[in-house]
Amino acid sequence: MPNTEAHRIREVRVTPVAFADLPLLNTVGVHEPFAMRAIVELVTDSGLTGLGETYGDAGHLDRLRLAAAGLDGVDVWHVQEIARRIRVALAADTGTGGHGMSGMVTGSRTADRVLSPFEVACLDIQGKAIGRPVSDLLGGAVRDRVDYSAYLFYKWAGHPGSEDDAWGAALDPGQLVVQAERMIGDFGFSAIKLKGGVFAPEAEVEAILELRKAFPDRPLRIDPNGAWSVETSIRVGRELDGVLEYLEDPTTGIEGMAAVAREVSMPLATNMCVVAFDQVKPAVAADAVQVILSDHHFWGGLDRSRSLARICDTFGMGLSMHSNSHLGISLAAMTHLAAATPNLSYACDTHWPWKDPADDVLVPGALAFEGGSVAVPTAPGLGVELDRDALARMHEQYLSCGIRERDDTGYFRRFEPGFDPAAPRW
Amino acid sequence: MPNTEAHRIREVRVTPVAFADLPLLNTVGVHEPFAMRAIVELVTDSGLTGLGETYGDAGHLDRLRLAAAGLDGVDVWHVQEIARRIRVALAADTGTGGHGMSGMVTGSRTADRVLSPFEVACLDIQGKAIGRPVSDLLGGAVRDRVDYSAYLFYKWAGHPGSEDDAWGAALDPGQLVVQAERMIGDFGFSAIKLKGGVFAPEAEVEAILELRKAFPDRPLRIDPNGAWSVETSIRVGRELDGVLEYLEDPTTGIEGMAAVAREVSMPLATNMCVVAFDQVKPAVAADAVQVILSDHHFWGGLDRSRSLARICDTFGMGLSMHSNSHLGISLAAMTHLAAATPNLSYACDTHWPWKDPADDVLVPGALAFEGGSVAVPTAPGLGVELDRDALARMHEQYLSCGIRERDDTGYFRRFEPGFDPAAPRW
Repeated sequence: MPNTEAHRIREVRVTPVAFADLPLLNTVGVHEPFAMRAIVELVTDSGLTGLGETYGDAGHLDRLRLAAAGLDGVDVWHVQEIARRIRVALAADTGTGGHGMSGMVTGSRTADRVLSPFEVACLDIQGKAIGRPVSDLLGGAVRDRVDYSAYLFYKWAGHPGSEDDAWGAALDPGQLVVQAERMIGDFGFSAIKLKGGVFAPEAEVEAILELRKAFPDRPLRIDPNGAWSVETSIRVGRELDGVLEYLEDPTTGIEGMAAVAREVSMPLATNMCVVAFDQVKPAVAADAVQVILSDHHFWGGLDRSRSLARICDTFGMGLSMHSNSHLGISLAAMTHLAAATPNLSYACDTHWPWKDPADDVLVPGALAFEGGSVAVPTAPGLGVELDRDALARMHEQYLSCGIRERDDTGYFRRFEPGFDPAAPRW
Repeated sequence: MPNTEAHRIREVRVTPVAFADLPLLNTVGVHEPFAMRAIVELVTDSGLTGLGETYGDAGHLDRLRLAAAGLDGVDVWHVQEIARRIRVALAADTGTGGHGMSGMVTGSRTADRVLSPFEVACLDIQGKAIGRPVSDLLGGAVRDRVDYSAYLFYKWAGHPGSEDDAWGAALDPGQLVVQAERMIGDFGFSAIKLKGGVFAPEAEVEAILELRKAFPDRPLRIDPNGAWSVETSIRVGRELDGVLEYLEDPTTGIEGMAAVAREVSMPLATNMCVVAFDQVKPAVAADAVQVILSDHHFWGGLDRSRSLARICDTFGMGLSMHSNSHLGISLAAMTHLAAATPNLSYACDTHWPWKDPADDVLVPGALAFEGGSVAVPTAPGLGVELDRDALARMHEQYLSCGIRERDDTGYFRRFEPGFDPAAPRW
């Protein structure tokens, strides 16, 4: 018999959490000792709970709570009504910041960032209500495992004032190769991405060439987060001709990316100059990017990310997936989405290897890497279960860590006061 | 408790049906005395049945059966797997024709045309299984009623050799105004569309201007199905400046439409030059069309039509909905889709008023026009129920009517042997 019960939202819990992070370098600074996330729980009058995960920055938390206050009584199948209510609620938002990307990307749409965890939680409840995995709510999985990539970072040996961490320093090509060997050994990743924009382009080109030598068959990517001028981007692009699978955000802006794209052989990828639907049309007109790195956290959830995928397919663009530091709820959502997206043809990014395995809010066991990929959960909903003790512990960590806005630049300046992250740096 | 039962396809029934049609004129000829459709029933091992409706042309029926043979055992939640199996099955298709549009549109994708009724039937079963209307499976209805438009046709008084039908002749502006008055009186439509391309453009411009006089507040459209040259289209567009809501397919092809769009003030709409995803990119590049008339029957079902809607929104194009002669299953599917599509901002086309109310395959009562709109069904699935006696009667009508391929041109030539439908006519 069909389950015709309504599933109306009766309670929304937004819990900021923090988890230990390592001193990973990027072009605007370095990761702080803790990364923040917000865990969203929707509870229905039918007694079901759905989970979502998103940024934990203070400005974003304020907006999540503003949005949450308007959701009482909405049926979890009426996601478009939830989106409408969130747009209405956000009219009262006067805050700034809270983009979750340490100032590197500010062009994503606030309403979509706020909608995302609620949409994921609704899908989790829908799946639980009908006994189906979330991938079934997205048209059904087209693969039973999702490939992720090895996400290499230049890094300090440890946070200043602390002991070296288990990964140690990665400040030159040789150390990056060691990092890659360990990460691939542990996780089995088939593709490799290097977060660049940290050292001069010549040094990063050398690193990529050393990685190519060490891993002759693995697709390679580099992402300097827009740190290079158009001229530098073109020079690097030519030097790495035939070496890169794609070149990610070498420079900022649609115009700059288009100028680079005209002069280099490899596809350009972005999660910086196209991060919202209204940026797609100008990017297509300029042929600025050939691969979009989707991210359901800022594209408005899984359904809207599927539409982005159809747009990429329609306009002849490739599709990959972006990641910030995240926990297991996000990994589950990313895996369901990727599984149900036929044209997601690249291994997805994930920061997962950088997280202490003990730091999560889930009952362990539902998600595991093997051969570089994660099996798509087949249990109802996202297929993961909240561990309330772990959530409380991670929330305590948030309260005690003192960080309220991700600030890679401010943290870096504590050690190099004159640091200027303005792009282009080279 | 969640209903975790699988719903695997165990039986597929494809039943061609025919229903009485009136001598409606268009630029390639005239509607035959019967219109054909195919009714698709999916039956699961769990005992649920889902309904889809599509074209009834012989070539299409062959493909539906080819596709159906490959669907045994697929879970109805795995629509992407169904799409994959259909693509595989159609590799064996060597047939031609069967586009369902009497030769006017041949650019739609065969795999999408074939997938559509199966996808709709899967959504119908999903909805029945979980006790939810199909609109909930599309993100939830954003409106509880869907507006349709008055679809006016030039027409003969009756089929040659038969008595005049109840609508009588409409061969001049005055008769079209009478037709519009009756149709709006019966159905309450707020927008008016005229199927043009039948008489010289001057006569059709005159008809539009007469309709404007008779209905000063109702949005007006004209659709000559590409019968005009670029030059004629521009002339007509200028003559109807400020009169039309949009001008639909005045001329054929993306290049021609773009040339017209540059010279006229009103948006150009199409269901001829953009009828598949691979035509969207060149149309956007040329700014050829400002409104796409979606049609789930050739865009591959409701989910893919929602993606088309997101594409229109993303690229600043309007969205309306196209119709062929259809029965109630299609009306239900169109209504659910339109209800769940926020940016469907125009009243949808429908041929419904031209159908004898007694001709349908459904138990009456679920769908009704009031004030020009149809209430979105709230019962599980599509919210309609097959009447097996009616289906049998309509199938008998198909068998006895002798029509196997829609051929408006061939039928017209029986009465005007020298008729040449080649475009542009003017």
